[in-house]
Amino acid sequence: MEHKVLNQSIQTAVEAFKKLDEKITLFTSATSLLDWDQKVMAPKKGRKAFSKAIGVLKTEEFKLMVSEEMGELLSILSTPEAADHLDEVTKARVRERKDFYDRSNSIPSDMFQEYAVLTAQANESWEEAREKNDFSIFCPDLEKIVEFNRKVVEIYGYEKHPYDALLNQYEPGLTVEKLDPLFAKLREKSIDLLQRIQQSAYKPPVEIFEQSFSVDKQKEFNRYLLPILGFDMEAGRLDETVHPFAQPININDVRITTRYIEKNVRAALFGTIHEAGHGIYEQNIDEQFEGTALQTGASYGIHESQSRFLENMVGRSEEFWKYFYPKLQEHFPSQLEQVSEEDFYRAINTVQPSMIRVEADELTYNLHIMIRYEIEKALLEGEIEVKDLPSIWNQKMEEYLGITPATDSEGVLQDVHWSFGGLGYFPSYSLGNLYAAQILNTIKKECPNFYSDIENANFDNIQEWLKTNIHQYGKLYTPNDLILKVTGEELNANYLVEYLEQKYSRIYQL
Amino acid sequence: MEHKVLNQSIQTAVEAFKKLDEKITLFTSATSLLDWDQKVMAPKKGRKAFSKAIGVLKTEEFKLMVSEEMGELLSILSTPEAADHLDEVTKARVRERKDFYDRSNSIPSDMFQEYAVLTAQANESWEEAREKNDFSIFCPDLEKIVEFNRKVVEIYGYEKHPYDALLNQYEPGLTVEKLDPLFAKLREKSIDLLQRIQQSAYKPPVEIFEQSFSVDKQKEFNRYLLPILGFDMEAGRLDETVHPFAQPININDVRITTRYIEKNVRAALFGTIHEAGHGIYEQNIDEQFEGTALQTGASYGIHESQSRFLENMVGRSEEFWKYFYPKLQEHFPSQLEQVSEEDFYRAINTVQPSMIRVEADELTYNLHIMIRYEIEKALLEGEIEVKDLPSIWNQKMEEYLGITPATDSEGVLQDVHWSFGGLGYFPSYSLGNLYAAQILNTIKKECPNFYSDIENANFDNIQEWLKTNIHQYGKLYTPNDLILKVTGEELNANYLVEYLEQKYSRIYQL
Repeated sequence: MEHKVLNQSIQTAVEAFKKLDEKITLFTSATSLLDWDQKVMAPKKGRKAFSKAIGVLKTEEFKLMVSEEMGELLSILSTPEAADHLDEVTKARVRERKDFYDRSNSIPSDMFQEYAVLTAQANESWEEAREKNDFSIFCPDLEKIVEFNRKVVEIYGYEKHPYDALLNQYEPGLTVEKLDPLFAKLREKSIDLLQRIQQSAYKPPVEIFEQSFSVDKQKEFNRYLLPILGFDMEAGRLDETVHPFAQPININDVRITTRYIEKNVRAALFGTIHEAGHGIYEQNIDEQFEGTALQTGASYGIHESQSRFLENMVGRSEEFWKYFYPKLQEHFPSQLEQVSEEDFYRAINTVQPSMIRVEADELTYNLHIMIRYEIEKALLEGEIEVKDLPSIWNQKMEEYLGITPATDSEGVLQDVHWSFGGLGYFPSYSLGNLYAAQILNTIKKECPNFYSDIENANFDNIQEWLKTNIHQYGKLYTPNDLILKVTGEELNANYLVEYLEQKYSRIYQL
Repeated sequence: MEHKVLNQSIQTAVEAFKKLDEKITLFTSATSLLDWDQKVMAPKKGRKAFSKAIGVLKTEEFKLMVSEEMGELLSILSTPEAADHLDEVTKARVRERKDFYDRSNSIPSDMFQEYAVLTAQANESWEEAREKNDFSIFCPDLEKIVEFNRKVVEIYGYEKHPYDALLNQYEPGLTVEKLDPLFAKLREKSIDLLQRIQQSAYKPPVEIFEQSFSVDKQKEFNRYLLPILGFDMEAGRLDETVHPFAQPININDVRITTRYIEKNVRAALFGTIHEAGHGIYEQNIDEQFEGTALQTGASYGIHESQSRFLENMVGRSEEFWKYFYPKLQEHFPSQLEQVSEEDFYRAINTVQPSMIRVEADELTYNLHIMIRYEIEKALLEGEIEVKDLPSIWNQKMEEYLGITPATDSEGVLQDVHWSFGGLGYFPSYSLGNLYAAQILNTIKKECPNFYSDIENANFDNIQEWLKTNIHQYGKLYTPNDLILKVTGEELNANYLVEYLEQKYSRIYQL
């Protein structure tokens, strides 16, 4: 009898929880649309007023997520007794909402409020600092942000390293203990490979890109390419923004943007493939997750793995351009007629240390990330001070990439992340590369025609494999469980190291 | 002392009310964007999921509008003591919110719920009925809708005629007692004028429109025209939809749509000018009303007056085409080179009784509205039954327009309004024409260069006059107060009657 009563009250709680979970998700969807529209569609003068509407929706969403009702439902549904009555999906939904609830409710609301004001202000001071190339304008705000994060990690709690608490916001379950050796190996091998590349006599003919490529023709090519890659144009859009991004509104409405630059054909080409990787992931999430906390990717790192996989492992492969290079030549005969497929392939894979992370090539990109990761960790541990960042930054750039920024604007001030308090975010980008290479190793085994499919622009099997093994699950599994399930082993750096070694050995004739 | 306490508690209530009013407005703005996006931007497969998100936002908005907090604030702020402490704008904000609060709270919530289900179902049965040309499919639902409205008007209350309670939802302050004589005169004069037109030997060369007009060229012309008319493209957008509409998101973001049909150049041409009239109104609302219940037009009728004024009084005038016809000819040389300006002007002003309201000309349009108005009134009074509507409809069509629909789909089933319960809505369209003609009479006196400005495509003075006298006020004044303030007299039918008589006497050489 008692069991039956318990069972009933759990069932009631499950129903109420599902309704609340869906309501929150619908608020997220609405906010996403306003956010997208403000960036993509809204007329110039109307954009400002969006912030207020977005603010109201986000506040309501946040209130629902940390509400008393949510607290009560979670406390019922996360007991061991309840666990026996919940299916896998409901458990995961509870896990996700509880994670956010616990974290958010642990921070006193005045502290939270203060931080919201601080980051808004920091975003402005960062913009000004970057514009005026003057770190001192941003420095006091960044100091406060670091200070806040030092407090927050103590509130969130961690087992070994305070930085774990920050990492976990983006990559649940990841720790410094796991990440350090991965990055150490990748750093060592990358620097070694980079040095050998720089010593190589061969230089790819990168100057072929120093030409004008008609924006209309670029658009035409991108619109031709997208559906072939697997992006469903009836369940998504492609638009233009200065800073490209992917924004899911719902599973059947995933919007990506790109940027066309006449003097830089690579920007839109690889930018679009990258965002398509994010977009296809969201489009392929199983419809059972619509209206739930699981209606998104498993983590920032796993999401990035899908964009990097498509952009780099597929989109910068020889096989890809065997099929698409003749099509690209048709679009740009005067620019590319005289350029061989092999030269084009090598040119798009040029390795060249540079100041700006978002413009970095596939190899040096990870070194940019490690600089940020090491700095964040040391800041949190109190080993370094914010005021010393410009010189620390430049030192590390010299050490890892052999170049020194001439200004802080192209150095320590280049990224927006710290200004909104996003410490712990940067590792996701390199995790994406690591995951992608490990997934590549598995898919090559399980889809033996992987490269011949690419050569024939047949992405059906590849996308089906990604959907079946990764995309469909949305956020059901933690990233660690997912990569284990997909590849049979924990994340390690070997696959990316080998992939880079092989690829660049051939290109640079090492 | 007592007075001071009262004053303080009123001030506190004012602050709380303003905050709540703004929050509701921001919800409205968000919902409007989702609504617009679903119709204009969302990819095919993603549209369905929008309804749920829109539903959640609308529910939240409704809850806020009828909340206990709102009730308490309104009861404090609508006392005579409070009135002394409130400025004009705050009083109007209270008036608007109170109006909705009182009406919504007067209906028992189960009745409200039932009606929501009924109208959703009625919309489906109407669609099916129209498609299958079978009134009996829609008839039972429409009977229930009429029944509901009979109950609702008793709950809302009215002084003289039950239909007043419905009219008031769209045109605050309007009564059957005022409207009947206006419509009677307009009907009589319109039918008389129509008969004389039909007897005239002159027939405008309307066949000039039976040609193809390139959609690209139509777009080009519309985009050229819009800003000249006064629509600010930096505070709005022009997009394409099957059913054109105007949707304000905020005062600086007003979106209009149009439809391009190759075989019907008039559709987009006058459709765009019409929606621009709505759009310019919203763009010109004073920024002090942003985030308040007054951030929209004074009423449905006044709003329609602005679209009709621009479309008909300006856009179908001889003077307008003196300037723009040569430009249009440049866009369509092969179609229009041989057509004189005078012939073009007469052709766009052809009068021809037709079955479908939305395709009707400026003169016969009002007769379509009167048929609907008379039917609605009689239904509410119980003088006629829903089941008899097809024959009543056809009878009135014959009587007023001299034609009889061959099918109910092009007769009684043509409009969506009744299926969503919008009884009382139709009169707004003809009120728009009546207001517009009365405003025309005034603006011609106050802007003596009215027609020469139009001839020179100089809309600065005209738009400035409309802004100063009408647009800037948003919903501050009731429609009756506004038209009195603008034209110095209550709405009457003389101006529209004279305008139509003059215009068509000249065109049809009566």
